[in-house]
Amino acid sequence: MPVHVISYDTAHPGDTSDLLQNLARFDPLKIRRLALLVKTDGNSDLNDFSRSYGLQSAGLAVEQFGGPALLERSTFLFSSGCEGAMTPFGQLFVDVADAADAQATRSSALAFGCARSRPLTGDEIGTLAHADLVTQTVLAAMADAGVAEADVSLAIVKTPVMSRVPATARQAVNKRITSAYSKAVAALGAGVALDEVERAQIKPETFDADPTLHARRAMVFSGNEVDYVEVLLLANRAGAAGDLYVQTGSMRDLLDAGGLRRMFLAAGCRIGADGEVEDSERVVATLVKAGATSDGRVRGRRTTIKSSHIDMDKHVRAAVSGVLGSVLGDTRAFISANTVHQAPPGGGLCACVVRRSAGE
Amino acid sequence: MPVHVISYDTAHPGDTSDLLQNLARFDPLKIRRLALLVKTDGNSDLNDFSRSYGLQSAGLAVEQFGGPALLERSTFLFSSGCEGAMTPFGQLFVDVADAADAQATRSSALAFGCARSRPLTGDEIGTLAHADLVTQTVLAAMADAGVAEADVSLAIVKTPVMSRVPATARQAVNKRITSAYSKAVAALGAGVALDEVERAQIKPETFDADPTLHARRAMVFSGNEVDYVEVLLLANRAGAAGDLYVQTGSMRDLLDAGGLRRMFLAAGCRIGADGEVEDSERVVATLVKAGATSDGRVRGRRTTIKSSHIDMDKHVRAAVSGVLGSVLGDTRAFISANTVHQAPPGGGLCACVVRRSAGE
Amino acid sequence: MPVHVISYDTAHPGDTSDLLQNLARFDPLKIRRLALLVKTDGNSDLNDFSRSYGLQSAGLAVEQFGGPALLERSTFLFSSGCEGAMTPFGQLFVDVADAADAQATRSSALAFGCARSRPLTGDEIGTLAHADLVTQTVLAAMADAGVAEADVSLAIVKTPVMSRVPATARQAVNKRITSAYSKAVAALGAGVALDEVERAQIKPETFDADPTLHARRAMVFSGNEVDYVEVLLLANRAGAAGDLYVQTGSMRDLLDAGGLRRMFLAAGCRIGADGEVEDSERVVATLVKAGATSDGRVRGRRTTIKSSHIDMDKHVRAAVSGVLGSVLGDTRAFISANTVHQAPPGGGLCACVVRRSAGE
Amino acid sequence: MPVHVISYDTAHPGDTSDLLQNLARFDPLKIRRLALLVKTDGNSDLNDFSRSYGLQSAGLAVEQFGGPALLERSTFLFSSGCEGAMTPFGQLFVDVADAADAQATRSSALAFGCARSRPLTGDEIGTLAHADLVTQTVLAAMADAGVAEADVSLAIVKTPVMSRVPATARQAVNKRITSAYSKAVAALGAGVALDEVERAQIKPETFDADPTLHARRAMVFSGNEVDYVEVLLLANRAGAAGDLYVQTGSMRDLLDAGGLRRMFLAAGCRIGADGEVEDSERVVATLVKAGATSDGRVRGRRTTIKSSHIDMDKHVRAAVSGVLGSVLGDTRAFISANTVHQAPPGGGLCACVVRRSAGE
Repeated sequence: MPVHVISYDTAHPGDTSDLLQNLARFDPLKIRRLALLVKTDGNSDLNDFSRSYGLQSAGLAVEQFGGPALLERSTFLFSSGCEGAMTPFGQLFVDVADAADAQATRSSALAFGCARSRPLTGDEIGTLAHADLVTQTVLAAMADAGVAEADVSLAIVKTPVMSRVPATARQAVNKRITSAYSKAVAALGAGVALDEVERAQIKPETFDADPTLHARRAMVFSGNEVDYVEVLLLANRAGAAGDLYVQTGSMRDLLDAGGLRRMFLAAGCRIGADGEVEDSERVVATLVKAGATSDGRVRGRRTTIKSSHIDMDKHVRAAVSGVLGSVLGDTRAFISANTVHQAPPGGGLCACVVRRSAGE
Repeated sequence: MPVHVISYDTAHPGDTSDLLQNLARFDPLKIRRLALLVKTDGNSDLNDFSRSYGLQSAGLAVEQFGGPALLERSTFLFSSGCEGAMTPFGQLFVDVADAADAQATRSSALAFGCARSRPLTGDEIGTLAHADLVTQTVLAAMADAGVAEADVSLAIVKTPVMSRVPATARQAVNKRITSAYSKAVAALGAGVALDEVERAQIKPETFDADPTLHARRAMVFSGNEVDYVEVLLLANRAGAAGDLYVQTGSMRDLLDAGGLRRMFLAAGCRIGADGEVEDSERVVATLVKAGATSDGRVRGRRTTIKSSHIDMDKHVRAAVSGVLGSVLGDTRAFISANTVHQAPPGGGLCACVVRRSAGE
Repeated sequence: MPVHVISYDTAHPGDTSDLLQNLARFDPLKIRRLALLVKTDGNSDLNDFSRSYGLQSAGLAVEQFGGPALLERSTFLFSSGCEGAMTPFGQLFVDVADAADAQATRSSALAFGCARSRPLTGDEIGTLAHADLVTQTVLAAMADAGVAEADVSLAIVKTPVMSRVPATARQAVNKRITSAYSKAVAALGAGVALDEVERAQIKPETFDADPTLHARRAMVFSGNEVDYVEVLLLANRAGAAGDLYVQTGSMRDLLDAGGLRRMFLAAGCRIGADGEVEDSERVVATLVKAGATSDGRVRGRRTTIKSSHIDMDKHVRAAVSGVLGSVLGDTRAFISANTVHQAPPGGGLCACVVRRSAGE
Repeated sequence: MPVHVISYDTAHPGDTSDLLQNLARFDPLKIRRLALLVKTDGNSDLNDFSRSYGLQSAGLAVEQFGGPALLERSTFLFSSGCEGAMTPFGQLFVDVADAADAQATRSSALAFGCARSRPLTGDEIGTLAHADLVTQTVLAAMADAGVAEADVSLAIVKTPVMSRVPATARQAVNKRITSAYSKAVAALGAGVALDEVERAQIKPETFDADPTLHARRAMVFSGNEVDYVEVLLLANRAGAAGDLYVQTGSMRDLLDAGGLRRMFLAAGCRIGADGEVEDSERVVATLVKAGATSDGRVRGRRTTIKSSHIDMDKHVRAAVSGVLGSVLGDTRAFISANTVHQAPPGGGLCACVVRRSAGE
């Protein structure tokens, strides 16, 4: 079975003991591609160094396990913010080039691809050049996964924000340094690669401004710990070996448990009488991206999502951790907020990787 | 119909415009008892003055509407903290002594009672005397509602915390000034009144320490804006007029959407195929109190509930706002955290007031 | 003596007991003008209701003391944020029209004037119309104080921020709703009234953008508890009775204790060998407004002022509370942050009201 | 010159570029002892991983420079919290065993020593065993520095806090897991080593409780990134080579700029007319530890130090950054808060390392 997806725990952002234990089952020489998708428990603010710390620690662990060559074939995407009933954890994606395992199947199965761009300069972040670089990096990840645009289920994109702007440049770039703006640029760039957004529609004045424009299969994260764009792309590839597949879905708003259940049903899971996924042991990964409307209202009513001392993304992640946790019965899910250009205003997108049941 | 329960919106904690509009339908002279149960959107920290501001504003509004005499017959319980998908709002309880309306029914219907204790001194807060005063105040509210201990569905208790301790007293009372400790004392005092806890079991060393000891029908809130104990008690009283009734339930943990659904089902509501209450227009009030285990784990997994810069109660309220919102489809619910001595560790309790359907 | 300036303590933002005790010495009928300049201890974030609560409480207290007529002649300016070694407190300004007291002096003495604008609409906030309204309100306060532009020492301006923007308007007004932007507009409007800024220089594109443009005698505060502009203007008026006078100064940066000492020396105070004001009992009011450069550096070195989870204004206020407190030896001072268009970038302005010594 | 003290900048907690550049001037084989005393800019809360990240990065840098052997001879003390006008930075202490340099001088000069304890178990933290381990570690650092108890100027102690307590142990150890409690235990343990506190006086009931008991030459920091005690000890050793010496002082309260000036004067610095140190280029290190009284009052007045959403230590550090910055004219100082058992309540202690002027 070539693609493995394994959740591992962390006692803190620098803890790689469970990661190393899970890596031990593989032969590093046979790993074609390794990816980590990790939620760290920092404060998700300007002085949150949990992603940097996790990134450095993961690099040391992978190098210890497989040497610089494996590190070269690895992709790390770290996101912080584990509010509410969310567990800080990591998801290990391993693509094993194992002849014995690699028996082509009749149906499609999970494949993944990775790509990283060159570093962006401070002047480029938040510009059209940034968006184009995201487009190219998503296309490179598609090539790496061996899939065409129509096969892609989800492009997970990490995009840099400017954390240290020279004083002289401040006025001009004021807007470009925000996390939302960088995500907006990256989402539209990914949308072009996935043929969901037209290149001609992407203009600086639409970034984080035109709510009608959005990709449909991109989840975007930002952070000041990177100065490059990095992509982890999930797809069901015809003829791929393995018993995993990825299913996507959508949420009408952040309370839409029904949308989550429809995704799990579509993935072949059973929903019990109490509304919970009954065979959750088959779900090896769940990803949710949810947002709030521009006025912060939910189901038409005032909330404090946009009017408190707590950043709106924290409100959203914490509430969604309750919604998803009550459906899946598991707190290890990759939940994040801010759907700018990734879903209609107030809506969300979701995905899960599920192990095919014995009979399938 | 003697008892009315009406939700009203607030644009901010001092906003009483919607309250006044809802009061306008009543004749102040015929109001036997008025109570407000309000969630304000302050920061829920030591410098949160939203409860005080709301309390002062509500007093001015009720006095404007019904004069000092109505104010004398009114009870105000304010709680802050509206994280996640929660709407800051108020619930107006009015008991109208209207001969025309007051037709005794065969079955029981919602009744409520209120009581306020004398002010506590700083030395008393957190002591057995404090617990005993809570017991007496719950008993007084039962008398006010005209119900016996067995009829009580829920005792909602507001209890003071010491905010300004003289320097000399600090060491001795260090523990007693915390919100959790004051809630612990009050919950046990309420449990004695409700015959759920034995008076002999209440000792200072059990306060916030013995997880096996808890009331089953008390929800306790604390705040430094009061120096007295105040109680709003809900019961279904046999022979009471009106088409409202109260139903309680319990949650296994903060993700237990099933527990919430069972409560709504027991109250006669319908749950749709998507897991949401279908006739939510009949639900006039929902109250949830949920907590976390002492190690902050949920379903056995690490969370950041007890290990982040955000107070654990905020994590819990925000997550539960997602769970409840996804079941009820409404963001106006009285959700609060910290179940010390009000439920087993990690568990929660819930209640709803529902309008009897036409056929009942 | 016609003008009195009295500091009063508050146990919390709604506490008016010390204010009422200080008011008791006056005859409300003889008060020509009353003003309160108050620092409240809220969290200075979107859910800080301490200013609203203080405003409501002060209104109730003044009305209780002097009836609606005195309330009509009163001006309240509330600002929150008391980080570091700062005491939450109020300054009561009273102008008594007392024939016996009002003996014209040879030299000038402290006079003050107040004015309030009409309410601004949400559409006006942050526009040129807003700036012009500030200009007019400062001019009205000058007329109220009976002084010309050259006599003005300090115009203290309160300006509204948009807290509740309709969803449809969000994109267009995104920038105008920030506190810094509203202060920028107000500072330039005040500068025009004080002949420090030319009306032709004020354009939307300069608001919070052109660091070369600034008033020299304006301190601006913003808050969502007001929808009008309010001004308290301090001046030394020739021939005015009384033994108080106001002295202004400037700070090179937020560590510039020397600038503070120069102001106190210019006001006639003595500085002791240890650098502290020796006759601080003569200082009846101290106001400081300080800021940070756009890159957050102080004396050329990196700080976390603009790169932490704590808002930059809190860093600045707390640090300045140490600088001023160590010079004045008193923690009751009106310290605030953000000097946009009120001082050169990184610099600050300061003022004190001092009682003339017996011999003067 | 055997002992070097060099300040280096960090762009973020993981940045070691300036450290490496400063290390480059030394021959790693000749370094007898290396110590880093570093302030990182995390949020100083439970989810602050900046110290761990800095520690990991510094270890990688020192190993890269001098191999595992030098790492073995190195001591790292990291403290977070750079509020107000404070610069996140590091201080590099290097003791070079250089025959050419090591010319014994007539007078004394700066010497330093380091020691690390065995790991503490979770059960030991906060107990007498913990205090005794601190005593032994300080004694070991004295031996490393080659000084007797009377020579010691300052013992800088890092002490662990329990971050992950097993659920079963929670009630019993509730108090011992706090940072203040761990500092209290460590300060008393250091006091015993320095002959300032009697061993018989140290009892669990005095920890963080008896304000009369305190060491006079210990600064204590805590953090959950270590499970051992670590000590960096500064002394002026008779006959030591070099042109550096250390001077200690005390502060009456957190506004006591006079106390800071007296320390710099005692160290031979000049204070200018404006109250600033004129020859600050001679000051190679400044350390300040300041606190607040138990009621949070400063100079007898209410502050928000103990009654806001911001932790008291942040208020103190930010205010002191203003006081010290205005005296020294430099933002690179090691300022920290909480003086439990390290100074009388409300007071503070300070130290500086100064380069002897040419004529001395």
